[in-house]
Amino acid sequence: MSDPRTPTAAGTSYRDAGVDLDAARRHTEGIARLVTGGVTGFAGVYPLPPMRDPLLVGCTDGVGTKVLLAQELGRVAGLGQDLVAMCVNDLVCTGARPLFFLDYLAVGRLDPEEAGVLVGAIAEACAACSCALLGGETAEMPGLYAPGHFDLAGFAVGAVERDALLGPHRVEAGDVIVGIGSSGLHSNGYSLVRRLVADGHLARDPDLLLAPTRLYTADVARLQDSGVALHGVAHITGGGLPENLPRAIPEGLRPVVDRAAWPLPPAVAAVVDTGQVDPDECWSTFNMGLGMCLVVPQEAVAAASSLIEDAHVVGWVEQGPPGLRIV
Amino acid sequence: MSDPRTPTAAGTSYRDAGVDLDAARRHTEGIARLVTGGVTGFAGVYPLPPMRDPLLVGCTDGVGTKVLLAQELGRVAGLGQDLVAMCVNDLVCTGARPLFFLDYLAVGRLDPEEAGVLVGAIAEACAACSCALLGGETAEMPGLYAPGHFDLAGFAVGAVERDALLGPHRVEAGDVIVGIGSSGLHSNGYSLVRRLVADGHLARDPDLLLAPTRLYTADVARLQDSGVALHGVAHITGGGLPENLPRAIPEGLRPVVDRAAWPLPPAVAAVVDTGQVDPDECWSTFNMGLGMCLVVPQEAVAAASSLIEDAHVVGWVEQGPPGLRIV
Repeated sequence: MSDPRTPTAAGTSYRDAGVDLDAARRHTEGIARLVTGGVTGFAGVYPLPPMRDPLLVGCTDGVGTKVLLAQELGRVAGLGQDLVAMCVNDLVCTGARPLFFLDYLAVGRLDPEEAGVLVGAIAEACAACSCALLGGETAEMPGLYAPGHFDLAGFAVGAVERDALLGPHRVEAGDVIVGIGSSGLHSNGYSLVRRLVADGHLARDPDLLLAPTRLYTADVARLQDSGVALHGVAHITGGGLPENLPRAIPEGLRPVVDRAAWPLPPAVAAVVDTGQVDPDECWSTFNMGLGMCLVVPQEAVAAASSLIEDAHVVGWVEQGPPGLRIV
Repeated sequence: MSDPRTPTAAGTSYRDAGVDLDAARRHTEGIARLVTGGVTGFAGVYPLPPMRDPLLVGCTDGVGTKVLLAQELGRVAGLGQDLVAMCVNDLVCTGARPLFFLDYLAVGRLDPEEAGVLVGAIAEACAACSCALLGGETAEMPGLYAPGHFDLAGFAVGAVERDALLGPHRVEAGDVIVGIGSSGLHSNGYSLVRRLVADGHLARDPDLLLAPTRLYTADVARLQDSGVALHGVAHITGGGLPENLPRAIPEGLRPVVDRAAWPLPPAVAAVVDTGQVDPDECWSTFNMGLGMCLVVPQEAVAAASSLIEDAHVVGWVEQGPPGLRIV
């Protein structure tokens, strides 16, 4: 059963086998109060708000090797927001509002204090995007994870009215691309970042390198609530702008962005300034300062820009072959 | 973005940093056809069937250290069904039917063939319980997982009409407990099992030790479709019968099971016969041969027994203090 969290690998007399049931119990007691929404003995229950023709939307993601850098630099709390953001930022690309979230935390040896920090941070990030933390699983798996190591996976579910589903079918030539600033590197490209840190090209600076991924749910909801026409939303994750922005654009059209239209945040600039990464590689690995892009009709640009902090008009949609054009 | 699966930690020029993007691409192409349900660029979409007053149900689980034993014994395919079963068997305890499933697969180094086997097995198990595999995430995380190591997490969403929600509120004194046979050890107690194998007390027999967890969704659905009165359902996982059966029982009542009422499956018998595990520990770690228990009124016993393979009348509900009584 997965609610409230219990270790899956609960063992034997078995502290010997590497599983600490007392620590597991302290952890479960500590986090039970963080879980919102209805919980039965075996699964979480969430009443669907009244809707005309609901489409459910589901997605899952992890934080990648950012977990390792955070562990190395001794600052793991931000990973909670990273995890929630990586999922709900995908979710809102469909026009859905997040309803609930579940987390999977796998550890080598359960440290109730650290696990409490992580789950507490997940709960806070869920609250910040009006999403219930419906449950989760904490698995203690000695032998798979080294002591001190852990992994995180998240699952988000939302709903959207069928006639409000966002997607390429709404996007037209002449639409404007509004980019929303990122808080830094977000949660992609960390295999490269860790290599740059290990090789001494990047300072071991948690403030710079570990800023939590920005949550864009409130930004998108504010537009929806204001009736601003929204044609497409693209979450800029692995693959960067070249891979993610075209996902929001229909066949026959392509996105164009003007690279001078927004500033690089310090963390991205620091990576670029190492001179160790080919520029193309930077574009296809990092968000380059835009964690989310909106595709809106011309007449919605002013409203979108005024309703969202750190929004920039960065490009447009034109006829052309597949792929991103950068000018 | 999480659909179709892309590696989260996609790195650099980066085979150097341990991330193989070509392997990732082959993997993505291989599994895209396994994902059912609508997929937009960023998240999976699932139309909710018409319902009067739907409660959504969500749960998450992993397979625990069974993943390690399967890796050690070179037989990982069954883990797909294990993962789906651990989630949907929890889900049906609420009376919900599963709607969709998402998986998170984290690997040290992506082996497209092995990943294809795993995701293929997940897709098959989803099909067996009429559940869409709506998406998933494959994360390549060198440095967190050793080469050849991987972890799996699953996430299931279902729905139930509010007035059909199962739970302790339906259970009455005099109700009968019908246990449904397990296929073996299912997915709990593997830290202990691995220790017993390592110490030479258990044979390295994958047929015995790695039988996939039984899927109980069709059994429960058959009862629901037949109009058989069902008061409670308990998935017997970590903590065994003593911890999981009471979850289905209201305060003031307790479950009683007769240990002679059902046979031990060979895998559980093999563990017990090692003589290395205290009997109480066995009961609180393994399913002891019953992977799922139903709580039904007397008049439903015959129907339940005839509709479900390997069902046994194993006990009853009586007034008493909390906890399981074993006779």
